[in-house]
Amino acid sequence: MEATTFVLFGATGDLAKRKIYPALYNLFIDGKLPESFHVIGLGRRSFSDEVYQASVQQSVQTFSRRTADESELQRFMQSFSYCALNIDHQEDYKKLLEQVQQKEAAMTGTTNRLFYLSVGPEFFETIAHNIKASGLGDAQGWKRLVIEKPFGHDLLSAQQLNAKLSESFEEHEIYRIDHYLGKPMVQKLEILQQSNPVLQALWSNRYIANVQITASETVGVEERAGYYDHVGAIRDMFQNHMLQLLMMLTLHLPENSTSEVVRFKKKKILEALEPLHKDNVATHIVRGQYAAGTQSGKPVAGYTEEPGIPAGSMNDTYIAAKLEIDDPFWRGVPFYIRTGKRMAEKSTRIVIEFKEALKQSTKTQDNNRIANLLIYEISPNEGITFQLNTRDPQNKEQFKPIHIDFHSNGDEVPEAYESLILDAFNGDPTFFAHWDEVELSWKWVQPILNAFAEQSVPLHYYPAGSNGPKAAEELLAQNGHHWWLDRESDQHTTTSKGEQQYVYTNH
Amino acid sequence: MEATTFVLFGATGDLAKRKIYPALYNLFIDGKLPESFHVIGLGRRSFSDEVYQASVQQSVQTFSRRTADESELQRFMQSFSYCALNIDHQEDYKKLLEQVQQKEAAMTGTTNRLFYLSVGPEFFETIAHNIKASGLGDAQGWKRLVIEKPFGHDLLSAQQLNAKLSESFEEHEIYRIDHYLGKPMVQKLEILQQSNPVLQALWSNRYIANVQITASETVGVEERAGYYDHVGAIRDMFQNHMLQLLMMLTLHLPENSTSEVVRFKKKKILEALEPLHKDNVATHIVRGQYAAGTQSGKPVAGYTEEPGIPAGSMNDTYIAAKLEIDDPFWRGVPFYIRTGKRMAEKSTRIVIEFKEALKQSTKTQDNNRIANLLIYEISPNEGITFQLNTRDPQNKEQFKPIHIDFHSNGDEVPEAYESLILDAFNGDPTFFAHWDEVELSWKWVQPILNAFAEQSVPLHYYPAGSNGPKAAEELLAQNGHHWWLDRESDQHTTTSKGEQQYVYTNH
Repeated sequence: MEATTFVLFGATGDLAKRKIYPALYNLFIDGKLPESFHVIGLGRRSFSDEVYQASVQQSVQTFSRRTADESELQRFMQSFSYCALNIDHQEDYKKLLEQVQQKEAAMTGTTNRLFYLSVGPEFFETIAHNIKASGLGDAQGWKRLVIEKPFGHDLLSAQQLNAKLSESFEEHEIYRIDHYLGKPMVQKLEILQQSNPVLQALWSNRYIANVQITASETVGVEERAGYYDHVGAIRDMFQNHMLQLLMMLTLHLPENSTSEVVRFKKKKILEALEPLHKDNVATHIVRGQYAAGTQSGKPVAGYTEEPGIPAGSMNDTYIAAKLEIDDPFWRGVPFYIRTGKRMAEKSTRIVIEFKEALKQSTKTQDNNRIANLLIYEISPNEGITFQLNTRDPQNKEQFKPIHIDFHSNGDEVPEAYESLILDAFNGDPTFFAHWDEVELSWKWVQPILNAFAEQSVPLHYYPAGSNGPKAAEELLAQNGHHWWLDRESDQHTTTSKGEQQYVYTNH
Repeated sequence: MEATTFVLFGATGDLAKRKIYPALYNLFIDGKLPESFHVIGLGRRSFSDEVYQASVQQSVQTFSRRTADESELQRFMQSFSYCALNIDHQEDYKKLLEQVQQKEAAMTGTTNRLFYLSVGPEFFETIAHNIKASGLGDAQGWKRLVIEKPFGHDLLSAQQLNAKLSESFEEHEIYRIDHYLGKPMVQKLEILQQSNPVLQALWSNRYIANVQITASETVGVEERAGYYDHVGAIRDMFQNHMLQLLMMLTLHLPENSTSEVVRFKKKKILEALEPLHKDNVATHIVRGQYAAGTQSGKPVAGYTEEPGIPAGSMNDTYIAAKLEIDDPFWRGVPFYIRTGKRMAEKSTRIVIEFKEALKQSTKTQDNNRIANLLIYEISPNEGITFQLNTRDPQNKEQFKPIHIDFHSNGDEVPEAYESLILDAFNGDPTFFAHWDEVELSWKWVQPILNAFAEQSVPLHYYPAGSNGPKAAEELLAQNGHHWWLDRESDQHTTTSKGEQQYVYTNH
């Protein structure tokens, strides 16, 4: 790997401490960082390198998935130095450039620069501009820009932001992080379909009845009230993470596809999405907001009672959507996507429900048979489950579901940020969001944003700790479907062992 | 369930003690025996009912999969009485008839008779004849005959036996036990294919490259030398159990098929088997015999050194065969079937290897990808495993297999004899061998028997504790296939924990 200076804006921030330093440390002990490698942390306040290194060390000790080894950690720390920088001050970038050049002088081979913007999106334009203006952008080898979400607030603002970034970085230099794309199971989706004839055989509207993608959180709005009330589930989760999951699940790839092919196919999926417009938003989208309820037996406040949320807020804390992909593989298969806060369970999961075989005989009865399912558990733990029908030899009237499972050992699974940062070093953009995807996602979502702004879509309330508004059940019931694996609401039941209780039955 | 007298020939034998009494007891505590129910045990020697009951009690205490409950066992014992009977003495059958009628007088409703022949096959004809001659066959309701294997020694003897039995019992009254058909996973094969669109989609030569059915034992010939040396693996295992597994795996059933349909489809499979003849036996069949070797680190004798085996015996303790089913579903799919004694592992297992997808791109490389497999573990423990390819996000060059498993809890799984006896009570012949199947199996096997008798097929020796003769590897290698999941031979390796070590890699 090539000599790289990792220039980190927002070095004292929460993301850096919780995710970026631990990820770098784990890559370091796995021998996956470049041999010539230096991190320059940037923040508004002045620190000595030693104070900065101590804070990095503490973050690794606190948040690394693997216990930090003291001597490894000491070696690791030597690659870190600090530079105070006011984002608006051009002269600070000159100072930074000097520091970068000084570090590069000690490196062997062509030197490269990776700029990681772990700061609010309001600073992206200024930083990108100043990188160029100061000469920081004139790397000997490559330069890359890694940015975090959100990328714009709607279609127009996203386009404007991209236009600004494009003045300093070319598209192939911009790595837009969607950390859902870094989750190990999401990274497996593409390869599972691509390299397994068994799954390829099943991967179309011939066999698939519907697909359900759920990302549910148990937490409420927490400390982000001011931000979240202007964003809602649609911008915070749906436009980016949920549509990325949809793309990664549905793309059909040739073997050994390059990142160009992956991105081309992802784009094709978004282009094939049946568009929404004023008249059909309300029949395809359910907007929800949590009301007071209970979780783990304790009462929790409704959204508008949360500190910092205006009493009459109509903001969405829940979205359910019905999407259709108009291509030969997926035509006729509804994709049900939902995400929400204060739900019964913390879980990100994809459920693929297979069609019943064509009726073979007029004597066919149902016999309580349940649907074949393929379940991808994405978080908190990764897993794959097939649900098949079988029968108890001594009770032949009844079908009995069996579950064929895979669960990986959590400790061995790299964190999303490890894979993503490694890919950025390697220049592999497969698991980053291309501008085309971002723009097309906003285009698809824009009619929803408009409808919400005009209040032309009803706001459904759901009790905290439930599985969301009843209207989301009806969204599926229209097609004769229902949501699979919903945990029973906290209000109604707890199992004796406090374990998760799934509703696997056909209700 | 209807009032039934269970007339058991061979009541003091090993099978009765190890399997039949424990099975009846477990059906009893599950409430699955008829309310009006009586067992009359038959043997040459005279016993009191009490002595007989005590021996039944002991067998349940020793061999029941579930711990015997003392008071339940006492209730259970009340249904047992004994009658001394010399199989050749007609007057003994008259005495038996009186005892049966006496028990029937105490029953309510129509009374039925189930005759269970847990005796050597040389007695089948005589018993069936005497049942008829004595009037025992004139049951008020139904009569049924349950017989154990072997059913004949070759095609001709099987036909003769069947002709004799047919004088006393009609085909629909004869329940030929093949206890492999009672194994829970074997009973699931049919329903798994029938009621799961996911498996149906894959269930043909379009997706399946080859099928491997293995039944391997670690034991040698044991105490059965005199019998086994005249039978060999071909008659003892292949003609019955192995061909039954093949049929249960490959039949395509309409939903909710009756036992008539199951049997019709099984027959169709045997009829579609490409026949063997003098000239192609040697290219389709590998005959093996174990030589001295080691198992669990201890030296074990070769077959011809076993007590009771003649020094020059050419008997087969191992058979591997390549079969083809000439129907639209299976044409072109080789079925590799093998069974042997003194093998590396005790296991009955079916492995389905799926085809690679059609090559999609000229850039396609192998990348150490391994085949998709579906594995049915039949014994000692039942299980289902899918082997799929995935990839380590941090090591993208290499594919990594994952295994998606189902394993049932052994204690909850009913024994083969429980299900089979229950089916015989209920008159469900689905999991019994129909005469058509027996006859067609012998027809298919007969050219092999002839070739062995003429010594026109070489006898390959394999060391005890190995995976069989090398010639069996070559049988598959001709088609570019290899046996999956062979355990490494005892000679070469033992794992630290003594666990089974499978060779999942592509060698």
